[in-house]
Amino acid sequence: MTELNRRWVLASRPVGMVRESDFALEEVEVPKPGDGQILVRTHWLAFEPAMRGWIDDKPNYIPPVPLGEVMRGMGVGEVVESRLDGYEPGDLVQGMTGWQEWVIGDAGMRKLPAGTDPRLALSVLGITGMTAYFGLLEIGRLQDGDTVLVSGAAGATGSVVGQIAKARGCPVVGIAGGPEKCRWLTDKAGFDAAIDYKSEDVEARIGELCPNGVDVFFDNVGGEILDAGLAHIARGARIVVCGAISAYNLEDRPSGPRNYYRIVAQRGRMEGFVVIDFLPRAPEAVADLLQWVAEGRIRWEADVQQGFENAPATLLRLYSGANFGKQLLEI
Amino acid sequence: MTELNRRWVLASRPVGMVRESDFALEEVEVPKPGDGQILVRTHWLAFEPAMRGWIDDKPNYIPPVPLGEVMRGMGVGEVVESRLDGYEPGDLVQGMTGWQEWVIGDAGMRKLPAGTDPRLALSVLGITGMTAYFGLLEIGRLQDGDTVLVSGAAGATGSVVGQIAKARGCPVVGIAGGPEKCRWLTDKAGFDAAIDYKSEDVEARIGELCPNGVDVFFDNVGGEILDAGLAHIARGARIVVCGAISAYNLEDRPSGPRNYYRIVAQRGRMEGFVVIDFLPRAPEAVADLLQWVAEGRIRWEADVQQGFENAPATLLRLYSGANFGKQLLEI
Repeated sequence: MTELNRRWVLASRPVGMVRESDFALEEVEVPKPGDGQILVRTHWLAFEPAMRGWIDDKPNYIPPVPLGEVMRGMGVGEVVESRLDGYEPGDLVQGMTGWQEWVIGDAGMRKLPAGTDPRLALSVLGITGMTAYFGLLEIGRLQDGDTVLVSGAAGATGSVVGQIAKARGCPVVGIAGGPEKCRWLTDKAGFDAAIDYKSEDVEARIGELCPNGVDVFFDNVGGEILDAGLAHIARGARIVVCGAISAYNLEDRPSGPRNYYRIVAQRGRMEGFVVIDFLPRAPEAVADLLQWVAEGRIRWEADVQQGFENAPATLLRLYSGANFGKQLLEI
Repeated sequence: MTELNRRWVLASRPVGMVRESDFALEEVEVPKPGDGQILVRTHWLAFEPAMRGWIDDKPNYIPPVPLGEVMRGMGVGEVVESRLDGYEPGDLVQGMTGWQEWVIGDAGMRKLPAGTDPRLALSVLGITGMTAYFGLLEIGRLQDGDTVLVSGAAGATGSVVGQIAKARGCPVVGIAGGPEKCRWLTDKAGFDAAIDYKSEDVEARIGELCPNGVDVFFDNVGGEILDAGLAHIARGARIVVCGAISAYNLEDRPSGPRNYYRIVAQRGRMEGFVVIDFLPRAPEAVADLLQWVAEGRIRWEADVQQGFENAPATLLRLYSGANFGKQLLEI
């Protein structure tokens, strides 16, 4: 019996908004693990806004996914065959599985403790949580009493950013789209206030809600939202540039933040980062995040879609804002 | 005999490009110094690009000059009458004289050592030199071997920035307008290369001259020049946002830097500052700068205009790029 490995490869480089047709479904033979390798059956895939950048052929922090190659992505799977010490069939592992049902892994695949919820592993305890943790604490240098503003606040990263800041006792305002997300932020995630960018004047509301200015602005969105936050930075503000989801699918680079110059009078700092640099320090983040989750200080949501054939459609949910919580696919 | 004090007051808030008619010349009585005060005859005035911001009624790092009040500005003058211990008639002093021929000062006026060249005191050893020194070393955190890019490089601040970097042994590229300024940068100021933004493709030239990217970008200009530099930042780059002379006289805020997002993949940092914060540390800067001037490592130019009645016209020279070196007026 020859089982087949279904995989999604990059079929074309999108121009503007990524489409499902930019990916093609292939069937190939299931590979065989060599010495020091494992064969993994993928059960879960995680989706990141940054994926849009990975499929552009532009300078970035990692090389673009080559045309015709399996789409890059994080996943959780089960070891089916092992020729690697310390890994047994049945072990749950997490790593760069790519969008494929079967994958050959090595020691770069991290074993998950038995009983781990793969949804938690792929969100709060995964890249998403690391991004929030190191972005806020290392790049944003959160201090006691800082007023924190988060855009994309109901997103997987933004919601953790705001809740870490709350766990540290700081006032936090979130910006999100729609009443449902805003209600979740204030009622479940403990944000002090939420601004609905779909129905409110974001810049005016930031001014009302942060009368002494914003000390740390964690921006996932870019564009007008970034400008609105820059208009209200406090002296010595740190603007953590984590993402610009508003721009990822635009054909032309949009104009930059008109208000960038506020960093001069306010002695502000805009800083970018790539979470990969902090992965060697993941254990300290995981320890804190696990504790906050256990204490109920970090609430999280996962938007779980079903079926391997829906991988491209699931990615697109991120850019329409359809997802609520970490975007996952159960295969 | 009642001598009159001529002074330039702010007559109107400019919309777009500042005009001479935004200032009005008044004559009032020469004031009398009270206890703890000195009467100073102003001999020199210094002009800064930032002055355009001081006469706008917008949030800034200092309050706007009120309408009808003497225009704010640095100057050097001579003590004519003293009721302040330690100051004698004939002493040379430097401070915020404003645009007026006579001014009442106090201990905030700094006594200059006998024989000081007022042009040097108002440029390399003044606000200009402090801005270059602390901007490059503290905000830019210059490291050995950094490739440094300076815009407005033939300006008073930019030329000192580049020469400090050269004194520290770093490769330095300057951006300036016109062949004369560019020649001065490479032939006199020791820059490794100069890019003439009036005749060259700035972004392409930066790429050629800085094949490993720019580690510190000291930007005085903003606009397209800032974008061109951002396109070539190296990993871990520091972008020192000192000024945006290209935008100061625009009626509408221009769009921001399209390439700001490069700071994410490159882990870059854009940081603004106001030199006032560093003035308590002026002595350390003055000591280094004086030594570099004495050693011929810092060359400097002053563009000296004549006659108090020409103060507004002299300011305008900064925004047309007519000046070459520190813009001064000898009264």
